[in-house]
Amino acid sequence: MPKQEKKPVKELEEFGKKLVVDIEKGRNPSIEFSLRSLSNVVFDKETRTLGLGEKQQKRTFFNVGHAKKFLQTLEVAKISKNLLDVQKHASLRDVFYMAKRTIPQSNINVVDEQSESDKALEDLELITELSREQLNINANKMGSVAGNVTIEDAGDAINWAKLGSGGWSIPSNVENIEFKSVKAEYIIYMEKQAVWERLHEDKFWEKQNCLIVTSQGQTTRGIRRLLQRLNEENKLPIYVLADFDPWGFYIYSVLKFGSINLAHMSGTMTLQDARFLGITADDVANYDLKKHFIKFKDVDMTRLKQISGYDWFKKNKEWQRQFKMMKDFGAKLEIQSLSSKGITFISDKYLPEKIKKKEFLD
Amino acid sequence: MPKQEKKPVKELEEFGKKLVVDIEKGRNPSIEFSLRSLSNVVFDKETRTLGLGEKQQKRTFFNVGHAKKFLQTLEVAKISKNLLDVQKHASLRDVFYMAKRTIPQSNINVVDEQSESDKALEDLELITELSREQLNINANKMGSVAGNVTIEDAGDAINWAKLGSGGWSIPSNVENIEFKSVKAEYIIYMEKQAVWERLHEDKFWEKQNCLIVTSQGQTTRGIRRLLQRLNEENKLPIYVLADFDPWGFYIYSVLKFGSINLAHMSGTMTLQDARFLGITADDVANYDLKKHFIKFKDVDMTRLKQISGYDWFKKNKEWQRQFKMMKDFGAKLEIQSLSSKGITFISDKYLPEKIKKKEFLD
Repeated sequence: MPKQEKKPVKELEEFGKKLVVDIEKGRNPSIEFSLRSLSNVVFDKETRTLGLGEKQQKRTFFNVGHAKKFLQTLEVAKISKNLLDVQKHASLRDVFYMAKRTIPQSNINVVDEQSESDKALEDLELITELSREQLNINANKMGSVAGNVTIEDAGDAINWAKLGSGGWSIPSNVENIEFKSVKAEYIIYMEKQAVWERLHEDKFWEKQNCLIVTSQGQTTRGIRRLLQRLNEENKLPIYVLADFDPWGFYIYSVLKFGSINLAHMSGTMTLQDARFLGITADDVANYDLKKHFIKFKDVDMTRLKQISGYDWFKKNKEWQRQFKMMKDFGAKLEIQSLSSKGITFISDKYLPEKIKKKEFLD
Repeated sequence: MPKQEKKPVKELEEFGKKLVVDIEKGRNPSIEFSLRSLSNVVFDKETRTLGLGEKQQKRTFFNVGHAKKFLQTLEVAKISKNLLDVQKHASLRDVFYMAKRTIPQSNINVVDEQSESDKALEDLELITELSREQLNINANKMGSVAGNVTIEDAGDAINWAKLGSGGWSIPSNVENIEFKSVKAEYIIYMEKQAVWERLHEDKFWEKQNCLIVTSQGQTTRGIRRLLQRLNEENKLPIYVLADFDPWGFYIYSVLKFGSINLAHMSGTMTLQDARFLGITADDVANYDLKKHFIKFKDVDMTRLKQISGYDWFKKNKEWQRQFKMMKDFGAKLEIQSLSSKGITFISDKYLPEKIKKKEFLD
């Protein structure tokens, strides 16, 4: 689990030094770290997140099955060290092209596919207990934020309340942002940018003293970390606004409890304080939205079954009630169906009412 | 073709009044506008854009085949008028839900699918000669921009040079932005946000006195209009930076010459001053990138054939040479392969060199 206080360059140097000692002592150079496979992904009931279990794996250099992966891990460590030294960041794709070099006096490339450098980097995250972002390797950039917050980033003071209709574009890496002033009581995170533009135009964040954050598609690591940092450093609760469908539930599930892919990163990537604000099965009757049901396809029902079987939802009566009602409806419902009640209905009535009544799912 | 100086509310009122006159005179209410079908999409050799031809279509109310579409067009006009009156904007999805009401004393909805309200809106764009954005109906929000520009938007003064690592998040609708100060010589537009973050971290826009704009996925209408307004109002040339593959060429083609879907909008949506900066077939040898070729799949070859047959590329020797070389390579190449030469190679050498030598494709 990555620790914030760790110094990346020092960690990488220690990793290298340990291998040098192996060599000098005539030992087979080896790396040991948590096994990153489905069999070692466990749901921790204490922290209520998906993480890695106790199983370890050992990789040695003088082993035909390990040698290439060993080299790839070192190559990615070298690339990360170089990036940190020159204070630059690279994307996963960049790292792939930097690692794709031909080993001298051979016709073998260190990596041939991005999946190889990606995996090597995940191993490096485990070995150094640092996140990819701390190793100066960035994920995707996506999303916008608005609200009464002033930050300092790359030498600029930025006021998220003064950025017109566009808002601040969230970078892929938010590790170096400093929160200078945070005047807000909570955060609403929504997947749909069109809903964000709705709330922004209605000055919802100003009237309700909150922050609004959107992704547009998947919740990138940059957005997760931004939400997590706002939550941890500024004690802001996070309310998730998503469609009433299995995919909306899944967005919430990943944000709050983590995912198998990121099990080794659960410490910096999960939001245990996140709560689901809507759309819920109860909203259908409360706000008379049945007319806007979108009938389930087979794939929706399959997905719903999967999600309702998740460890963290299985014993949660409130969530099981939602799943049951969705199943009985045999239908899903979009946030934007609220527009049928009037263009500002979501800002003027739906959200203020639900937040006031604390109608959250946990 | 939408005109900037038109007053949306006035146009909509005139549209309504014309129908009232029809009714008062006992005529069958009718609407006439350009035929929006493939048979009427033409490439205008003068303006070098895809647009609609001379063919017209007439829609009358007392016609079983027309009545519902007639009503849908009026419904969308009403929704747009309401939005303009209260100075609010809605997304296409919002408009769908607002239009999806049941006709009194019937069980018929005005619209049942979003495709119906979308088409009605496209008709309304033609009837009023106003763009969807001018009718206060927004497309998707996407993308980021950085550079030495100050704008005024929604009451805020925003300096694109002072927004940290994130940049300004481009809204879906940029019609109301005012450019207060523009200090730049050109714009680089790139599809990939990771490349944008590369150039931004390297302070490329500061060193080269330019603007950098990225989408992340398709070029939204908001981004196109932003580029077009910067080009027209501030005389900034636009250079497109895309992968060397048929899809990269297609991005350029749509930006510059328009697309069939937007043929009725070519006036506000095409960028006749755009030029293709790279990656080109010549870069392969000039920058020694052959090693990073990605072999063509059948679908790439098919797409390449389609694009090389486009009217506007057919007689262009320079482009035909590129297509031929790509075909002979049987391979494509990504922008990020430049990272194999060093993380800042693109900022320090590739782009400055190409721009200085004016190595553009037109």
